[in-house]
Amino acid sequence: MESCQVRTDLALEASEGVPGEQTKVSGVRVNEYKKQGDILVTKVCIETKNAAKMLGKPMGCYVTIEAPTMAEPDEGYHREVSKCLKKELCKLLPEKSGKKQSYLIVGLGNRAVTADALGPFVIDNLYINRHLIKEYGKAVLEGGDCNQVSSIEPGVMAKTGMETAEIIKGIIRETKPDCVIAIDALAARSIKRLSRTIQICNTGIWPGSGVGNHRNALTEETLGVPVIAIGVPMVVDAATIVGDALDKLLSENKELETLRYGGHRQKFAELNNMYMTGKDVDDIVKRVSYTVSEGLNMALQG
Amino acid sequence: MESCQVRTDLALEASEGVPGEQTKVSGVRVNEYKKQGDILVTKVCIETKNAAKMLGKPMGCYVTIEAPTMAEPDEGYHREVSKCLKKELCKLLPEKSGKKQSYLIVGLGNRAVTADALGPFVIDNLYINRHLIKEYGKAVLEGGDCNQVSSIEPGVMAKTGMETAEIIKGIIRETKPDCVIAIDALAARSIKRLSRTIQICNTGIWPGSGVGNHRNALTEETLGVPVIAIGVPMVVDAATIVGDALDKLLSENKELETLRYGGHRQKFAELNNMYMTGKDVDDIVKRVSYTVSEGLNMALQG
Amino acid sequence: MESCQVRTDLALEASEGVPGEQTKVSGVRVNEYKKQGDILVTKVCIETKNAAKMLGKPMGCYVTIEAPTMAEPDEGYHREVSKCLKKELCKLLPEKSGKKQSYLIVGLGNRAVTADALGPFVIDNLYINRHLIKEYGKAVLEGGDCNQVSSIEPGVMAKTGMETAEIIKGIIRETKPDCVIAIDALAARSIKRLSRTIQICNTGIWPGSGVGNHRNALTEETLGVPVIAIGVPMVVDAATIVGDALDKLLSENKELETLRYGGHRQKFAELNNMYMTGKDVDDIVKRVSYTVSEGLNMALQG
Amino acid sequence: MESCQVRTDLALEASEGVPGEQTKVSGVRVNEYKKQGDILVTKVCIETKNAAKMLGKPMGCYVTIEAPTMAEPDEGYHREVSKCLKKELCKLLPEKSGKKQSYLIVGLGNRAVTADALGPFVIDNLYINRHLIKEYGKAVLEGGDCNQVSSIEPGVMAKTGMETAEIIKGIIRETKPDCVIAIDALAARSIKRLSRTIQICNTGIWPGSGVGNHRNALTEETLGVPVIAIGVPMVVDAATIVGDALDKLLSENKELETLRYGGHRQKFAELNNMYMTGKDVDDIVKRVSYTVSEGLNMALQG
Repeated sequence: MESCQVRTDLALEASEGVPGEQTKVSGVRVNEYKKQGDILVTKVCIETKNAAKMLGKPMGCYVTIEAPTMAEPDEGYHREVSKCLKKELCKLLPEKSGKKQSYLIVGLGNRAVTADALGPFVIDNLYINRHLIKEYGKAVLEGGDCNQVSSIEPGVMAKTGMETAEIIKGIIRETKPDCVIAIDALAARSIKRLSRTIQICNTGIWPGSGVGNHRNALTEETLGVPVIAIGVPMVVDAATIVGDALDKLLSENKELETLRYGGHRQKFAELNNMYMTGKDVDDIVKRVSYTVSEGLNMALQG
Repeated sequence: MESCQVRTDLALEASEGVPGEQTKVSGVRVNEYKKQGDILVTKVCIETKNAAKMLGKPMGCYVTIEAPTMAEPDEGYHREVSKCLKKELCKLLPEKSGKKQSYLIVGLGNRAVTADALGPFVIDNLYINRHLIKEYGKAVLEGGDCNQVSSIEPGVMAKTGMETAEIIKGIIRETKPDCVIAIDALAARSIKRLSRTIQICNTGIWPGSGVGNHRNALTEETLGVPVIAIGVPMVVDAATIVGDALDKLLSENKELETLRYGGHRQKFAELNNMYMTGKDVDDIVKRVSYTVSEGLNMALQG
Repeated sequence: MESCQVRTDLALEASEGVPGEQTKVSGVRVNEYKKQGDILVTKVCIETKNAAKMLGKPMGCYVTIEAPTMAEPDEGYHREVSKCLKKELCKLLPEKSGKKQSYLIVGLGNRAVTADALGPFVIDNLYINRHLIKEYGKAVLEGGDCNQVSSIEPGVMAKTGMETAEIIKGIIRETKPDCVIAIDALAARSIKRLSRTIQICNTGIWPGSGVGNHRNALTEETLGVPVIAIGVPMVVDAATIVGDALDKLLSENKELETLRYGGHRQKFAELNNMYMTGKDVDDIVKRVSYTVSEGLNMALQG
Repeated sequence: MESCQVRTDLALEASEGVPGEQTKVSGVRVNEYKKQGDILVTKVCIETKNAAKMLGKPMGCYVTIEAPTMAEPDEGYHREVSKCLKKELCKLLPEKSGKKQSYLIVGLGNRAVTADALGPFVIDNLYINRHLIKEYGKAVLEGGDCNQVSSIEPGVMAKTGMETAEIIKGIIRETKPDCVIAIDALAARSIKRLSRTIQICNTGIWPGSGVGNHRNALTEETLGVPVIAIGVPMVVDAATIVGDALDKLLSENKELETLRYGGHRQKFAELNNMYMTGKDVDDIVKRVSYTVSEGLNMALQG
């Protein structure tokens, strides 16, 4: 049996495999439960090296929050999503017997590219207090004892000339946070998950994804502190979607099965570096980033 | 024989019909000539009502400038494209025996939506002089006698509550320009034309395109003055591209011909309101809008 | 007695005259009342031509809402200010025996210049429904019968080459609103009113201010429909503030009275085209524009 | 004799002292020479600890380029300024016997605050090559051997919760540049220097300025590598300008000398956190940042 690797940043989609071919992979545990407002939370745990290889994702826990109308401008609904994010995030944050922690929030991506601006925009709306605590002590803050929060927008390598991992490693050495939370825009496989899904995982960020030895990954191994990643799919890879449409058509016409493995995907080279996105992505990224910020603020102030 | 209407704003693509099915339509005259820097200029003239119906475009002249590397940041190349635009635009501008004219440039689209911001961005870089001429006379301007240029960014209906045609009609009544030049972002059918093509036509702008009676079109008929339209394709409709990919695959497998007219396109309803675009569209729209501005500035100052 | 004209767009400040010289001008009626949250509402009615000349403002009613902490980010407080704006605005809107009206909201100023972006930013957050009513009828809207709202951001003359009045006149002719509401950033005389004051008046907008025959004013006389103006001071003229500081110093030192009319103001020519503003004007203009939008939305949906 | 400390980031202005009181300070060497296009270059060397204390600036060399029309949009003129910046910058860069160096360019300030956005905007237009050299070696770059350039926009402490020095120290530890070049918007004392002056110095950046032990300064002492600072005054402190205007008036009226040291400055508390700037600062910061980028690009590619 071959690997069923597909181009998606969502472990949930990877665990579903090719559409129409729902295969259970051993070593993967999936639980789902409904929340208020039709919000669906799914937890995918990849528990063996073999499962990690099959799904093309590192071992660990991936929680997916699917909020069907998150792309719409409904403040009440977004508050529900923020609360749900807060709750799920708190479960994944490393514990130290109730002691308050210090967090470095990393806003990945490029502020100047709409579909990649989620990380920087989330950073814009966070409550940051590390500098206040350093200067005045915790007493100055309402509520007394609290977590310490700092943030950085490292920028993209084409602009900085540095790996994001180099920048973050240096800042960690100087400021010694207990935990890193990295925010990034993701690619989904399915249009129905676009801007409607939040993935939280405890495996860190693997640039270019896939499993392997990445010295440039943002993981506990490379950074020395636990790394929680939060992502929202903002684009769908164009080649993937065309390939999937073909697969669907072919699978519905059994006489065409032979074509299926004929490698039609490589015919769409012109689709490389193209992505598919909604007509209102500029508005959506602002709204969704605010919802993620609020969830983070609630989780870290608790 | 049926209409071969396809979703494209480019007359050139409409005249090519469905890929792989190059049919000559009677009443359509096509000329092409090469320019410096691999720039290809094609002139499509739709000369009969029947041809207009077949191509889904109003009768008139459509000049397409294809500049293969226009999406790249090469100042010298962009200057060549601007010069070419100037030359082709001047041929289409209405003449009045050498008399200087007054132009109202209309920047269509939505500044806040990257792929739709071309019109507003072009307006940002124009040389505007109508207010100077009104206040000080033409003598004040270098070069003496010159065309008069004003501009407006009317905004989109969802934001103004007004049809663009209403706004422009009102402004024309008050300021009485001789000619309107409207700039807009277009949708192409083919990825290879994305951000690499400029279309100039003398038929005006037909919102939602297609031929018919549009009281909201920006045309000489509705506005009372000639309307030149300049457009650059910034997106490809997602459903179109998936449909085309399928057509291509099917046409290469003759045994599947039967599937072809089985209406697979309607199966991709989820692709509605999705579009495909390059990963660097934010940078490209800035560069290309500057190139169009420069072409316009050269043409109108001449 | 000479005119006490000073550089301010606020009738309230004009009515106060030169600081330290509180003179009552006949023909000017001033009432003030406190609101919740230390909000102070002052109504200045200029009732005679002579008073108009003295104050350098057209005859009419000017309502000033002073909200001392409006520059701070406090959502609850801003809601109070929005409610107050709604209430005062409704009193000034022209009535037609309970019949619903159609409004054209004009966002004056330049989106690209922070201190001048209030008008365009207010427009961004309005509920616009004219196009929906035109297409589907009023039945489609929640709440049934309602006012009709459209909006326009005309841009500045340096960019359009047209007087704002020309653009608005044209649009009014085509779309026939019952009333125009124009939003603009103002200049105050006093730093303490900066970003903390909203002025509503029923006299329209007089570009460059002062009284006189302005064919380019946005007034009922030039546009043919009532014009309500809403403004927030975002800058203080630099020359004014230096002059005032000197006046204050000199008035406190009676032996220097002779200097006072020696025309020290003209010595500060280098201050022309300079303005004074707070270090966080970029944040403030976003917050305040949202507060004004909300007040307008409440007033027009009622 | 007391210190003549005044609120200015320009050593040139500090060396001039209070207007009208041109005092030579011992230990300060000043040279000036004219360049093409009325560009004036002045070199102020502060050579003794006492002089440093008098001027409120650390010991070192400060080169000031005054380009009277730098605020205007004249491409040719800006190129001259860029060339001049390149030349003066090269003289200050630390040498290592012709060996190519690695530079980390730091864009200080806040992209979201117009008058403070110079640093981030300069970073946007730099040629960055460190990642290319790391991946492909120097051979891949045109021209062969070259300096290595990386950049970072650290953000402001209110947003990151970290001192800029902490962030930069960490990045230096990881990426080991030979030299840091920090870009920042400055405050001038005189309006005539606003947006028309570039200061280059080899003393680093002292947040809040003044001399003393700053663990948060960006200097060779704190960072371990030489730090060159480039700054352009974008604002004038409001209290300073009012105070200066008063001083000027009073000095012209000898009978008022007594008032002079009466501490009129503290009367203008309302001017705290206010600044004075030109009406077109949004445009100017874009133009000037481009000019600085070009100068840097020329200097580092040489």
